[in-house]
Amino acid sequence: MPRTGVAHPVADGPAAFDVYDTTLRDGAQQEGMNLSVADKLAIAPLLDDLGVGYIEGGWPGAIPKDTEFFARAAKELDLRHAVLAAFGATRKPGVRAFDDTQLRALLDSEAPVVTLVAKSDSRHVERALRTTGVENLAMVADSVRLLVGEGRRVVVDAEHFFDGFRHDPAYARDVVLAAVEAGAETVVLCDTNGGMLPAGIGEVVRDLRAALGTADALTRLGIHAHNDSGCAVANSIAAVEAGAVHLQGTVNGYGERTGNADLLATVANLELKTGRSVLVPPADRPGGLAEMTRIAHQISEVTNIAPFARQPYVGASAFAHKAGLHASAIRVDPDLYQHIDPQAVGNGMRMLVSEMAGRASIELKGRELGFDLAGQDEVLTRVTQRIKDAEAQGYTYDAADASFELLLAEEVSGTRPAYFRVESWRAIVERAGSRGTPATAEATVKLHAGGERIVATGEGNGPVNALDHALRLALQRVYPELAEFELIDFKVRILDAMHGTDAVTRVLIETTDGQTAWSTVGVGPNLIEASWEALTDSAIWGLRNRGVAPR
Amino acid sequence: MPRTGVAHPVADGPAAFDVYDTTLRDGAQQEGMNLSVADKLAIAPLLDDLGVGYIEGGWPGAIPKDTEFFARAAKELDLRHAVLAAFGATRKPGVRAFDDTQLRALLDSEAPVVTLVAKSDSRHVERALRTTGVENLAMVADSVRLLVGEGRRVVVDAEHFFDGFRHDPAYARDVVLAAVEAGAETVVLCDTNGGMLPAGIGEVVRDLRAALGTADALTRLGIHAHNDSGCAVANSIAAVEAGAVHLQGTVNGYGERTGNADLLATVANLELKTGRSVLVPPADRPGGLAEMTRIAHQISEVTNIAPFARQPYVGASAFAHKAGLHASAIRVDPDLYQHIDPQAVGNGMRMLVSEMAGRASIELKGRELGFDLAGQDEVLTRVTQRIKDAEAQGYTYDAADASFELLLAEEVSGTRPAYFRVESWRAIVERAGSRGTPATAEATVKLHAGGERIVATGEGNGPVNALDHALRLALQRVYPELAEFELIDFKVRILDAMHGTDAVTRVLIETTDGQTAWSTVGVGPNLIEASWEALTDSAIWGLRNRGVAPR
Repeated sequence: MPRTGVAHPVADGPAAFDVYDTTLRDGAQQEGMNLSVADKLAIAPLLDDLGVGYIEGGWPGAIPKDTEFFARAAKELDLRHAVLAAFGATRKPGVRAFDDTQLRALLDSEAPVVTLVAKSDSRHVERALRTTGVENLAMVADSVRLLVGEGRRVVVDAEHFFDGFRHDPAYARDVVLAAVEAGAETVVLCDTNGGMLPAGIGEVVRDLRAALGTADALTRLGIHAHNDSGCAVANSIAAVEAGAVHLQGTVNGYGERTGNADLLATVANLELKTGRSVLVPPADRPGGLAEMTRIAHQISEVTNIAPFARQPYVGASAFAHKAGLHASAIRVDPDLYQHIDPQAVGNGMRMLVSEMAGRASIELKGRELGFDLAGQDEVLTRVTQRIKDAEAQGYTYDAADASFELLLAEEVSGTRPAYFRVESWRAIVERAGSRGTPATAEATVKLHAGGERIVATGEGNGPVNALDHALRLALQRVYPELAEFELIDFKVRILDAMHGTDAVTRVLIETTDGQTAWSTVGVGPNLIEASWEALTDSAIWGLRNRGVAPR
Repeated sequence: MPRTGVAHPVADGPAAFDVYDTTLRDGAQQEGMNLSVADKLAIAPLLDDLGVGYIEGGWPGAIPKDTEFFARAAKELDLRHAVLAAFGATRKPGVRAFDDTQLRALLDSEAPVVTLVAKSDSRHVERALRTTGVENLAMVADSVRLLVGEGRRVVVDAEHFFDGFRHDPAYARDVVLAAVEAGAETVVLCDTNGGMLPAGIGEVVRDLRAALGTADALTRLGIHAHNDSGCAVANSIAAVEAGAVHLQGTVNGYGERTGNADLLATVANLELKTGRSVLVPPADRPGGLAEMTRIAHQISEVTNIAPFARQPYVGASAFAHKAGLHASAIRVDPDLYQHIDPQAVGNGMRMLVSEMAGRASIELKGRELGFDLAGQDEVLTRVTQRIKDAEAQGYTYDAADASFELLLAEEVSGTRPAYFRVESWRAIVERAGSRGTPATAEATVKLHAGGERIVATGEGNGPVNALDHALRLALQRVYPELAEFELIDFKVRILDAMHGTDAVTRVLIETTDGQTAWSTVGVGPNLIEASWEALTDSAIWGLRNRGVAPR
């Protein structure tokens, strides 16, 4: 719980290596992302858990929400290591720094670190800023000096640096020198348009350092990369390898266009692959890399942007193995098939079941689900064959663990749990009226359970919803445990798109009982029938998982 | 339309630079992806449009679906440039290559190129393959020789090469030499676990080339990267810069775990940033980079994996600029704020705040459909607003031109074409019996057309199929033209996965009359109702397109 009135950490100066998070500022530029002050206040402690050195909170003065964030952060946040940074721009052309209202707002934010964006590409100075190169250098120097004079630590983000250095290296260098000489502690080289490749990044950083001459030793360089060429992580590492000691990025690679450099993958690479120690996790919890997966997912809950399953290190699929080719060897020696131990980043290995899977991966999956199939050759052969046949029909078990477990249980014990016997079901959808009149859906289920014949009718906004309600209503008479089950996801995939509605449909549903979530699959030419299969599997798995015996 | 019995392109040997797509094989290893033979046959021509040199279709012999793919591809696909490659493994230990059934299946596939995966890490040879280093070298040499002797071009994928080379460089080099000496035209260095960084990739490729000595000049090297460290694109480029002339990857970066190197971003970087010309688009259409965005999206429709908005080059957000710092300057000089011209990859710049962009593109789209909206400010404003409202509800018109045209026609003329008036419809799905008994579907439609009240009932294998039949039956009484219409595609997407079956459903259907194909969209909480909307739009558009007047 955040305490109020606590003193923030205010480091006296930069660390040997600075990890600077800009999720709350540059990350929030992402299309469709809209962070409230409360969202930002919820994300900041997670970044602190991760062990970043700096949290760039926004642009106070320019964005009212950000002004409020800094005011509330001072009272409500209790950061252990991370220091807040306010983002802003150098003074306007032809205005004294002291009179620039925007610089004033940065001071008023009371953030101990201020990051100023400065133009470093002479074309941008002329065409976008519409001023002279000389005035731009004065803008940088004056603004930095004002803030440093007021006791702030200043970082300068040299915008469009790489494009600028290639176009006019002397001018780009002069901007860096103006910032450093005025007292900026770090100058961050920004690939603002994101189009660089790693070799070019390394080359420019090395050329700049040579051009700085004796000033190089006094200059701390940083890197701020965007992912437009798909190389933001590699570009950031290339800059660090060329001497940058300050890394900017965003959690989950959020950001405008293709996003910023994913801070998580970059930091994990630096720590696990180049031997640098860059995060400072809090002393009172594991923090750092070991909590990275949790932190990534919690932040995506706040941003309400669905996590990307293939995201390096923290994605749900990042350590999921499907290929049968590898499965037998993974069992012998998982290290041979994983670039790192997934636990190092708080993630876990998963075995997926598929037609490509052989007996070995089924054995492993069985073990994961509590079935010891080692040496049970006959069962393994039967299960492998059944999965191959099922997948040929369109089933997939890699996203339907619960259906797979029922299949496995059936093959091991020889029967399916007999919770109920279906006599019939029917779903009706109708609309009486023209476009605009809503349609109605109703379903009736007749089944036998607990020695009774039960008939139940449910309504819903569609046929599957109505069937779900009817099935639940019918079964609850005998299995009140079902009241807690809730359908939370429903996916439909048409498998053979070339035959229109004659195609085979696969339905995946996810259900929860508040504690566990499970997925089941149904397949058939008829979408409603496929849904029914997944719905009944879901009820059976849920009851079985709770240890309920058939009544 | 695919012709039958066409001769495939069979290049005599490799090009100066080979682009080798493995979407259909390694990409299909992605969690949740399950490509049918029809899916693969639909994707291959899109890869050919892109201009890749090779399409790896699967593993014939090991996976029945893949055996079928190669058989059908030979008859049904008409590739212009791309050559099909079959994937398989080197012979088993202790078996003669000639007797290896799996190698036999590769020959039977009749693919002109065969790609063999071979172990190149001595630890994998011992622990996973459980044989000796010497036997593994013989397995590589024998297998390559057999296939080359049968007239196949052979590529060898050296699995776990980078880890292997670091562990035991002499053995990894010997595997490369064994393959080359036996006649393999290219040896592909695989970062199978995906954990490399670009600097390490460059170093290993250079060290290998030095270790090959005089054999280096005879050896074509390739690269196969995975994205576990978030660097697959950069790693691929690093290998090319170190001398690799064969690039493997997948469209949209599909693949196991974090995916393979995204072929699209890698190729775009190579062409636009390193000046290499690597794609060979067909002569009869723009193809290549200029169609990359369309191709990426069409492939994601087939895989039914939602496109990633932040995907480099082709993502919906890749050139989208949010309000703020840059907006005014972008209008002055877009080149200052984009790493490339988005049209170079068939994408477009979007200003997320500007109403102007919306109106301009609607005007353009209108012109494409035969409506001159220039200067019709009121109509443009109305259409823009209606589309914004519709998209907020879940409609998409990108893939539903016909629905968009009806909307536009309605706003221009003030009415919808009144071919029929629906009184009511009803769909019933029922199953009398337990699991295994087939369900039946029946639909009744009541409508008014040609001065009559018509009631028709259709059956089908599902509710949408039944409704389609009923609607067609009813309308044919008055509009016999409908007899030629056929539903050829039906796609369902659940838009808000967090609310289970309460979510909004979007249905896209495609219809053909034998000459033209058109797509319509329907949206609603009820899948059947959304389908009905798309079905009726389809009938209306088809009749209007044929110049049929309402009767």
